[in-house]
Amino acid sequence: MEQLIDEAHIEALAVGAAALGAGGGGDPYLGKLMVLKAIRQRGPIHLVDPFDLDDDCLVIPPAIMGAPTILVEKIPAGDEQYRAFRLLERTLGKTAFATMPVESGGLNSTLPFVVASLAGLPVIDADGMGRAFPEMQMESFHIYGVSGAPMTLYNERGDYCVVDTLDNYMLEHIARSVCVSMGGVAHIACYAMSGRQVTQAAIPHTVSLAIRLGQHLIDAQLSKSTPLDAIRAATLGTGYGAAVELFRGKVRDVERRTTGGFVRGSVTLDGFDADVGSQLRVEFQNENLVAFRDGQIVAGVPDIITLLDLESGRPVTTEGIKYGYRVIAVGIPTPPIMRTHAALAVWGPRAFGCEHDFRPVEQLVHG
Amino acid sequence: MEQLIDEAHIEALAVGAAALGAGGGGDPYLGKLMVLKAIRQRGPIHLVDPFDLDDDCLVIPPAIMGAPTILVEKIPAGDEQYRAFRLLERTLGKTAFATMPVESGGLNSTLPFVVASLAGLPVIDADGMGRAFPEMQMESFHIYGVSGAPMTLYNERGDYCVVDTLDNYMLEHIARSVCVSMGGVAHIACYAMSGRQVTQAAIPHTVSLAIRLGQHLIDAQLSKSTPLDAIRAATLGTGYGAAVELFRGKVRDVERRTTGGFVRGSVTLDGFDADVGSQLRVEFQNENLVAFRDGQIVAGVPDIITLLDLESGRPVTTEGIKYGYRVIAVGIPTPPIMRTHAALAVWGPRAFGCEHDFRPVEQLVHG
Repeated sequence: MEQLIDEAHIEALAVGAAALGAGGGGDPYLGKLMVLKAIRQRGPIHLVDPFDLDDDCLVIPPAIMGAPTILVEKIPAGDEQYRAFRLLERTLGKTAFATMPVESGGLNSTLPFVVASLAGLPVIDADGMGRAFPEMQMESFHIYGVSGAPMTLYNERGDYCVVDTLDNYMLEHIARSVCVSMGGVAHIACYAMSGRQVTQAAIPHTVSLAIRLGQHLIDAQLSKSTPLDAIRAATLGTGYGAAVELFRGKVRDVERRTTGGFVRGSVTLDGFDADVGSQLRVEFQNENLVAFRDGQIVAGVPDIITLLDLESGRPVTTEGIKYGYRVIAVGIPTPPIMRTHAALAVWGPRAFGCEHDFRPVEQLVHG
Repeated sequence: MEQLIDEAHIEALAVGAAALGAGGGGDPYLGKLMVLKAIRQRGPIHLVDPFDLDDDCLVIPPAIMGAPTILVEKIPAGDEQYRAFRLLERTLGKTAFATMPVESGGLNSTLPFVVASLAGLPVIDADGMGRAFPEMQMESFHIYGVSGAPMTLYNERGDYCVVDTLDNYMLEHIARSVCVSMGGVAHIACYAMSGRQVTQAAIPHTVSLAIRLGQHLIDAQLSKSTPLDAIRAATLGTGYGAAVELFRGKVRDVERRTTGGFVRGSVTLDGFDADVGSQLRVEFQNENLVAFRDGQIVAGVPDIITLLDLESGRPVTTEGIKYGYRVIAVGIPTPPIMRTHAALAVWGPRAFGCEHDFRPVEQLVHG
């Protein structure tokens, strides 16, 4: 199955990917502008089903790595990821058949379309997180056996690095240092894999899901229906469960620091409507990790915690959220492939230093 | 002019290079053992004059980068630099004709002989510092127009990095981050250059000088003459000036911290003989940088400040010096090529944050 992605799809993708991005994955506005320009210059881009790939074809995902707080001040020139992509091809001595997002998020879902447009290649309808996560080894690619290295990193000045290691945790460690020395943001290509590995290790159909989800959120605003209903409608029949409302309230405090190549902190909401007197605190590392309602955990990684603006229904990112924002906090149950024992060891709450074991958000809220 | 380097030369080189190394350049014992093993296995190694090189031949210097305090605990497997050297050849798509030290120091003068032995290539009788310095851009290669990048870095686990940039300061910045993420020590190849560039940018004949200097220091111990006389005799007729005695005394304090990929600190000596009641304080960053006698500067970079054990006449390194050591502090005036305006901007006292301008050690001591 193949689909032609045009400007309308990208408008929707930017919104939907940011919602799946759990507050991270970068500012969707920036990525959208870059892809729209690419499509206007070179035409629509093919999105292909992961299960239609030849086993032996080469797929190279590009991405932006670093703190979203820095990225909004350090705008890319536009070809950094393409250069990282081509450098990884040269490093491997092979030519890529397609590109693919490493995660679902505002920037990292859209930028592969820029690379695809520049390279004249299709994008695979899949990714390696089914949401966004902050670290290199937090990839279904890693969990299901793909090496992240060799990896290439470019900065906006044309400086670059190639990193190779057999250990994806070491890859995160070295690459994060390079990213910080490049000023806190790096444009990368990594997790080169075969078509067969895509079918084994990627979360399938998340790009089309993000487009559908974005379209539902945009439509919901026009029809005055709720963001929660839009998310439920868009995820129906996918591996993702029915989204649940975690809280409604106003941001009373944001504690945020950019450190070690990440933005870390928490946001606290004061309730209104049925929640008057209650508080929700969401801790984040680039992405929203765990939500506590009046001290009790109500959702945690890998389940998706997304804050949406109550007026517009648009997702709010961790680098953009501010005092006074009125938001609805939504929990989206992630698919079974993201909740296996092997997966939880890599991206469950304890992998982030949280003292809680994973419990599905649908159980935490209803049970 | 070409010379065959055998085991006796290496015994002398390890001592002499450590004396030129200004307290840095790594533990000479370790490097010596590695080259002696290589020579026993594969025979003597050719040392060639830099002015005999073909203009177009490729020279690749290998080195160890990082804090000497870490290196003594993290012994190399032995082929890391050879792997970095070969990776740089592959990165450039060219084959090297010879190798060369980046600096004169206990390890970084000897290890190129290990690479030369493994690769079956000669070593060039020259280096890029005429002593040892702690940072990548502190190279006559850099000062006189050679790019340090592309650069390759290996660790003992086989993880590697290739770094490319047009800016040698950025190279230091990125490579230092990689070095720290690799555990504080990395095995590198960098400053690939042509034979013509060697004649323009290298400090010539420093390997043979180090061998001669080492031999004089070893002989001085047997003949009971002083290390100072040995250094003066060895440097006679070279670009280096006549060494001067800065102080004699006993180590009363060593302040040392391993931070940011360097060992930084100071050593304080209490005088004896003519210096009773006086103190000498030497500040270091891997290498000895500046010496203050009773608060007055008596020597500073790029001039060489070397501490030698009073009994054995052997140089003492910054990671090895301890309370109670009885040493003579010697200042060696560096050649004119190392004291140009361009050179002092890169490795003069102010490049290390010191508030003094460079003044030649022979003027500081003799007034």
